[in-house]
Amino acid sequence: MKFDPKRYLPILTWGRDYNRSALTSDLVAALIVTIMLIPQSLAYALLAGLPPEAGLYASIAPIMLYAVFGTSRALAVGPVAVVSLMTAAALSNIVEQGTMGYATAALSLAALSGVILLGMGLFRLGFIAHFLSHPVIAGFITASGIIIAASQLKHILGIDAQGHNLLELTFSLVAHLPETNWITALIGLLATGFLFWVRKGLRPLLVRIGLPQGLTGVLVKTGPVAVVVATTGAVWALGLADKGVKIVGTVPQSLPPLTLPSFAPELIGQLLLPAVLISVIGFVESISVAQTLAAKKRQRIDPDQELIGLGAANIGASLTGGFPVTGGFSRSVVNFDAGAETPAAGAFTAVGLAIAALALTPLIYFLPNATLAATIIVAVLSLVDFSILKRSWAYSKADFAAVLATIVLTLGLGVEAGVSAGVGLSVILHLYKTSRPHIAEVGQVPGTEHYRNILRHDVVTDPSIVTLRVDESLYFANARFLEDKIQSRVAGDASVRHVILQCSAINEIDLSALESLEAINDRLREMGVQLHLSEVKGPVMDRLKRADFLSELTGKVFLSQYEAHQCLLRLVGQSAPQKPTVGLT
Amino acid sequence: MKFDPKRYLPILTWGRDYNRSALTSDLVAALIVTIMLIPQSLAYALLAGLPPEAGLYASIAPIMLYAVFGTSRALAVGPVAVVSLMTAAALSNIVEQGTMGYATAALSLAALSGVILLGMGLFRLGFIAHFLSHPVIAGFITASGIIIAASQLKHILGIDAQGHNLLELTFSLVAHLPETNWITALIGLLATGFLFWVRKGLRPLLVRIGLPQGLTGVLVKTGPVAVVVATTGAVWALGLADKGVKIVGTVPQSLPPLTLPSFAPELIGQLLLPAVLISVIGFVESISVAQTLAAKKRQRIDPDQELIGLGAANIGASLTGGFPVTGGFSRSVVNFDAGAETPAAGAFTAVGLAIAALALTPLIYFLPNATLAATIIVAVLSLVDFSILKRSWAYSKADFAAVLATIVLTLGLGVEAGVSAGVGLSVILHLYKTSRPHIAEVGQVPGTEHYRNILRHDVVTDPSIVTLRVDESLYFANARFLEDKIQSRVAGDASVRHVILQCSAINEIDLSALESLEAINDRLREMGVQLHLSEVKGPVMDRLKRADFLSELTGKVFLSQYEAHQCLLRLVGQSAPQKPTVGLT
Repeated sequence: MKFDPKRYLPILTWGRDYNRSALTSDLVAALIVTIMLIPQSLAYALLAGLPPEAGLYASIAPIMLYAVFGTSRALAVGPVAVVSLMTAAALSNIVEQGTMGYATAALSLAALSGVILLGMGLFRLGFIAHFLSHPVIAGFITASGIIIAASQLKHILGIDAQGHNLLELTFSLVAHLPETNWITALIGLLATGFLFWVRKGLRPLLVRIGLPQGLTGVLVKTGPVAVVVATTGAVWALGLADKGVKIVGTVPQSLPPLTLPSFAPELIGQLLLPAVLISVIGFVESISVAQTLAAKKRQRIDPDQELIGLGAANIGASLTGGFPVTGGFSRSVVNFDAGAETPAAGAFTAVGLAIAALALTPLIYFLPNATLAATIIVAVLSLVDFSILKRSWAYSKADFAAVLATIVLTLGLGVEAGVSAGVGLSVILHLYKTSRPHIAEVGQVPGTEHYRNILRHDVVTDPSIVTLRVDESLYFANARFLEDKIQSRVAGDASVRHVILQCSAINEIDLSALESLEAINDRLREMGVQLHLSEVKGPVMDRLKRADFLSELTGKVFLSQYEAHQCLLRLVGQSAPQKPTVGLT
Repeated sequence: MKFDPKRYLPILTWGRDYNRSALTSDLVAALIVTIMLIPQSLAYALLAGLPPEAGLYASIAPIMLYAVFGTSRALAVGPVAVVSLMTAAALSNIVEQGTMGYATAALSLAALSGVILLGMGLFRLGFIAHFLSHPVIAGFITASGIIIAASQLKHILGIDAQGHNLLELTFSLVAHLPETNWITALIGLLATGFLFWVRKGLRPLLVRIGLPQGLTGVLVKTGPVAVVVATTGAVWALGLADKGVKIVGTVPQSLPPLTLPSFAPELIGQLLLPAVLISVIGFVESISVAQTLAAKKRQRIDPDQELIGLGAANIGASLTGGFPVTGGFSRSVVNFDAGAETPAAGAFTAVGLAIAALALTPLIYFLPNATLAATIIVAVLSLVDFSILKRSWAYSKADFAAVLATIVLTLGLGVEAGVSAGVGLSVILHLYKTSRPHIAEVGQVPGTEHYRNILRHDVVTDPSIVTLRVDESLYFANARFLEDKIQSRVAGDASVRHVILQCSAINEIDLSALESLEAINDRLREMGVQLHLSEVKGPVMDRLKRADFLSELTGKVFLSQYEAHQCLLRLVGQSAPQKPTVGLT
């Protein structure tokens, strides 16, 4: 493959056609996203257990780098709720929150995650993300949303509480409940209530008074900024910080600092598994958003290049005082709705946030933590959606089991255990399903060349010829099942002389299955029964020819089932066709 | 399901028809197997790190119990090489060899393995064993054979050496080489050489002088007994035990003792994973032998009942001073060849071995360990077969990778790491293969109702209609791959108005894939493209009807691809069919 710089640097494609019209659109979108991102970034830093400025820093360099390497025109990269929660869970197992080591470990986690994403992109390993099934992700996001909301209750109440799962958090909250700071609680509950009202009540109101849809959306998104301004003002004016209301306090006025993550082997060892999970979850979230938005404009997303873009963004975060980032749902949708046409909008957002980091941080000195917590709670509760349970129950019990396990284990044991169990269970259930494939004994529909299941259709068969159709590729997990089925079908029925395997639904035969076919062939030979194949697909046949199986086969390979049946009927002496007497049990 | 005692107690089936002819056959077979088993049992006990009598005990109660519960007429249950090696590997990580704790832990391992097998049988979980692919087992057995042979060299040379993988063993052997006891080495090498000659040279000789095939086989199998007699006699007559030749020594003259395995939680925790591996490997080995032998007489093996039989055998071993057992290949074949007709032959063998344990043990006081080691080496080297590497290389690179990893990791890290890696890699490679299914863009073979790959066949298509045929069931691991493929095919080609998914090879659509189809449908709608399905299988359609997808679908579901194509051609205004210009990349 020729090296094509445009493949690895999508900026070369859209940058060349950049014009004044795109510039205007991108600037407008950037302004709106910047206003929305300021409180959100601060809040997610809090959720990740880091100082608020880390949230701003994590939104600057990563956005720039994604603009260079990413393929989505509208994706906005930065801290997101679930990844911030996973960051907190990973780090607080290792270092104490609030220490320098914690911030350094966050850099290492971002660097590690960046390297993993970059590696997956360069080696085209994006398929690893496919092992996360949709229902498992849905269950995981719902459970994470609940844990995040619960983890923020301590800020709303002004108390201390710790825990990485719902049980720990609940116990801890209840134990500390008597220490509630009532002024903090008042601010927190008012802020939460107001933000909920903005979402549920303001939007219909604005629509009713005739504001255009687009402007309504923007106004609703500025709700958090209004709350930030109002509560900060109240704390400052009423001197509430002296009455125990916890505030953000001094935030350095600075551009993102240059930082160096630690690569101490012990630390990297402890962070490896969390980094893999964060990378995969972050990638899956991001690519779903990117593809949904791209489809609206018939644009193309290259998943492997997306991995490179997100990898670069995370490495950027690790070098500029940030923490793990990914493409966020709400910010990307706002960016898209506000008219962003190219990744330059992201770059302008980064400039806006850099100005905020330099100039606006003194203004948030009196911002209460409770306000940030309210922002998070309202944002994540929209992620909580138990309908996946009902939906999967109706569609497939196996999917339901995986979702339920993911939700229960995430709530009960935490994010890492939950998502690992979900993935493991999905794989096991899938293997289990394909390990017991549907195997139908078929007969001829009278007067046609069609063969159908003898249990469902009125077909004719010959007692000396058994035809089995396997509705699944043959591989190690179901090879022995086929052996058992054939053995039990033939061993008990002395009239059988020929077994035909109709291979029309077999897309692959792996070496295990080949050896099972050989064993079946040998065992049938011992019983005086011939084994035949019919309707073998081209690629499967190509592979069988590379092995000795076809020369060992006691019977023949027929192009069609009809041909096989006719030929064998002549062979067994035209015994009159009759209704089947023994079915496959 | 009605409870049928005959299902769980196969003895009720064969026991009722038992007659004098079967009795005679079984008695002859039992005599031959008993003679063969005496040295083999002692040797495998040595391999497992246990006193020699444990090997006899492990062959008595288990055989009896299998005769009651097992479904194979010819399977002989007892200690086997690979399971004995795995027992040694599991136990010596926990307790020191030669201590009382070691023997007790062996009982616990057998009990745990018995409970696991029994549980798998009662809950019909035999499919778990299917996750071991044939090539992985072949690689594992080959590597285990090498490790076993290497582990016995210390007895041949009369030195100390430790290690659970080839590297450790080799280093240890080389380090202790100067301590070689030359008399022991002479006995060991002569015994090994003789046993090899019996296998390779004696058989052709006997056949040449006209002995019948059956008798030849029996005589060859008595080779180990001859070596035992000769070397024991030599050590006794020449007083070699005083010259440093290690001998078996005092073996208690007793029937199998009643023993109670320890169920200390810590011990059980440490033994759980090894017990699972031993159970699964043992079951796979056993069922393969059982099915091969059953096929020769058109008998049926019930895999779930086999689990119950082997579970009972292992629990029996744990209560009578034994260690983990399973159905052995060579002893079962000898039993079968010698004419065993029912599991009663096994029971008679057990009686024979009980007599040996009671009466013959004083005779083996002077039996040198080197002779037992020679017996093991010659037995296991027949398991070593690297041809699986060549075979899998020719057939499938994925299978080759799994085999190579299993062999290398088993030799390099030991049996547990090797087999775990093999299973893991098989699963991952399988998921990888099915995560990138073959997706063909198809067109109409002119003048027919057939549709074929546009890259391979001379077909006609319409630029506004794209038909894709997916040759795999749709599930979470390939759902997103399909999304990417469709998006990249359609996004770059503005002439497309209809996408048809030909579902003829799709055996299942899980919830993830359903959600991907919904996403595809939504994204195509945004692009002004309709999505249609054709040739959906009955069970897949049943399930789709339970979801909202069909009402959301922008296009239609057609019974046949031909019908879909004709209908859409009319819809797009009969633009003349033409050769395809854009293919699926």
